[in-house]
Amino acid sequence: MFPFEVSHTDSDSHARTGTLVTPHGTIRTPAFMPVGTCGSIKGVTPAQLGETDTDIMLCNTYHLALRPTADVVATFGELHDFIGWSGPILTDSGGFQVFSLAQLNRIDDDGVEFKSHIDGAVLTLNPEQSMDIQNKLGADIIMAFDQCPPLPSTPEFVTEATERTIRWARRSKVAHTRDNQALFGIVQGGLDVDLRLRCLDAIVEIGFDGYALGGLSVGESFEEMSTCLAGVAHKMPTDRPRYLMGVGMPRDLVAAIRSGIDMFDCVLPTRNGRNAYAFTPDGFLKMRNACHKLDASPIDAACDCYTCRTFSRGYIRHLFLANEMLGPTLTSIHNIRFFQRLMNRIRELIPQGKIERIHDEYPVTRENSKVE
Amino acid sequence: MFPFEVSHTDSDSHARTGTLVTPHGTIRTPAFMPVGTCGSIKGVTPAQLGETDTDIMLCNTYHLALRPTADVVATFGELHDFIGWSGPILTDSGGFQVFSLAQLNRIDDDGVEFKSHIDGAVLTLNPEQSMDIQNKLGADIIMAFDQCPPLPSTPEFVTEATERTIRWARRSKVAHTRDNQALFGIVQGGLDVDLRLRCLDAIVEIGFDGYALGGLSVGESFEEMSTCLAGVAHKMPTDRPRYLMGVGMPRDLVAAIRSGIDMFDCVLPTRNGRNAYAFTPDGFLKMRNACHKLDASPIDAACDCYTCRTFSRGYIRHLFLANEMLGPTLTSIHNIRFFQRLMNRIRELIPQGKIERIHDEYPVTRENSKVE
Repeated sequence: MFPFEVSHTDSDSHARTGTLVTPHGTIRTPAFMPVGTCGSIKGVTPAQLGETDTDIMLCNTYHLALRPTADVVATFGELHDFIGWSGPILTDSGGFQVFSLAQLNRIDDDGVEFKSHIDGAVLTLNPEQSMDIQNKLGADIIMAFDQCPPLPSTPEFVTEATERTIRWARRSKVAHTRDNQALFGIVQGGLDVDLRLRCLDAIVEIGFDGYALGGLSVGESFEEMSTCLAGVAHKMPTDRPRYLMGVGMPRDLVAAIRSGIDMFDCVLPTRNGRNAYAFTPDGFLKMRNACHKLDASPIDAACDCYTCRTFSRGYIRHLFLANEMLGPTLTSIHNIRFFQRLMNRIRELIPQGKIERIHDEYPVTRENSKVE
Repeated sequence: MFPFEVSHTDSDSHARTGTLVTPHGTIRTPAFMPVGTCGSIKGVTPAQLGETDTDIMLCNTYHLALRPTADVVATFGELHDFIGWSGPILTDSGGFQVFSLAQLNRIDDDGVEFKSHIDGAVLTLNPEQSMDIQNKLGADIIMAFDQCPPLPSTPEFVTEATERTIRWARRSKVAHTRDNQALFGIVQGGLDVDLRLRCLDAIVEIGFDGYALGGLSVGESFEEMSTCLAGVAHKMPTDRPRYLMGVGMPRDLVAAIRSGIDMFDCVLPTRNGRNAYAFTPDGFLKMRNACHKLDASPIDAACDCYTCRTFSRGYIRHLFLANEMLGPTLTSIHNIRFFQRLMNRIRELIPQGKIERIHDEYPVTRENSKVE
């Protein structure tokens, strides 16, 4: 079990900061994981990712299992070797993408049958297959196979998915064969705090190296998610990392951290970066907007990323209007660095007992305000 | 006039090596200039370009004049400031793109009227406008406005374009207003060596800071171009840089260097990189090919670029099949470095009197052989 140490816990909230040690390096928590869907952070090299002070990245089991396949990756060693990233990696279970991207043919207790979104090939995925794939990929942290219900769903559907998630968690733990990979269990239950807590008890009973909340940020409001987090996160085991999957916007991150969450992943910095949305402490900049045309200032004068040290808003706007690849690349680099600077500042404020200051320093964490 | 010094000339050919000093840095010749069409080497940051040991890059006046316009660039300072590249830059005159990309409405001695390839807007370009734009862009080296006839063309058409090029060169020199930019004259004349030499005499008579051959690599065979180069290049002034525009393949570069050429530009490393063609000393690798699927070796084991130091052929193939932006970026970085390593090796061999060795070390310079 990877050493996890909480060095400080906030006195006014459940926020905490610490370190998780993995075979490929130490992760400072709270930690934000950029997403390398197919084994690459879109448009960003591992060297550029390293310069953003990212400790750990996430790769998607579903995408890698379809292409190039886990067996192909394994011939290169581990995923780290294949993608040229020597730091820690987390792979998800593949479940979320099967339920959101693929066309589902059948779901039952054994697992799921679906059609590949790439070529329509009929494939199956179940806990044993997910563990086999993730064992072959060799990420530092891997995830139990779960069923993620969309929101809103009927209470019956959410309950059924939650119970199946528990059964699949048990099988995932049995199927996991590698000692040098941490296996995290996933708690489902929709927005029903009681159901979440019952699921949490069952998942903890099985016993994992860390615990995740899945099935949030899937259609519910900020208030709904916050309420659920406030009721559940701090009841997750204190001695193990707590991971909120697929989240999120800066204010989501801060709310979750105050509820006791340690880890996050989200495509937002890169997806928004490719679409010309740049994060700043005050909100978004839409980089295609005409107001940036003659603006020689960087996206964020306080940011120390390569993009902000080197390029003006005017140039980045030009790149997007000219459909130059560098527009998405430079904005993604900035956005990832923005998230890492935000996390770093939170890690500084927690030991000082001043996490609420983050809302003054980063007004974007109060609401999803926009500027141009 | 920028200091240009030839340190060594080959005894068996007209090949020579030296340095050209510009306000933004020294260019080692023979020099290869990667092309940043719209003010960005597609997919490659200035930092990554610097790591390829590139001394100077080219930007296209036509593209920048249309978008974002020279006036916009000038509000940011010079082109260097706008694009974040602190090394030397050369801008072309815009003529080549007007004749190849835009829809021509009219050409006469005053200049050309054409429709923008972006939005169909009717625009004009003439020597005075080209100089004004290039003066505003502020590149270290700028080019006289010329008429580039496609090949094959009738002798009458080539002669007319050549004579117009001479008249436009005279007007370009008069219109050029900045002391800290070198202005190069362009020699046209198609494949007719006599016409080329008459044009060269006239252009030298006007007097420029360097001399370029335009209108080659526009449809003729390797043998036709080589014959033309052999008859013309060594008769260009020995005390000024000689620049062959828009060339080319590795064997074109070596043939031209042996004819006495000092500078080149070409989109090949980046255009081929985006299309999954990687250069090696033995020929091309088509990175999408199935033979690379399980190949853990780099594109070129002898290459020291970031791509070859970090990634396997198998991973790069995966990136292209998954349509990941990193495939074009990593292959472009390698290809640019390939061209710079080739030029560097040639610069080493010339003082040793052993330039012919380049054909053994880089068989791709003998013929455009392909491997997979």
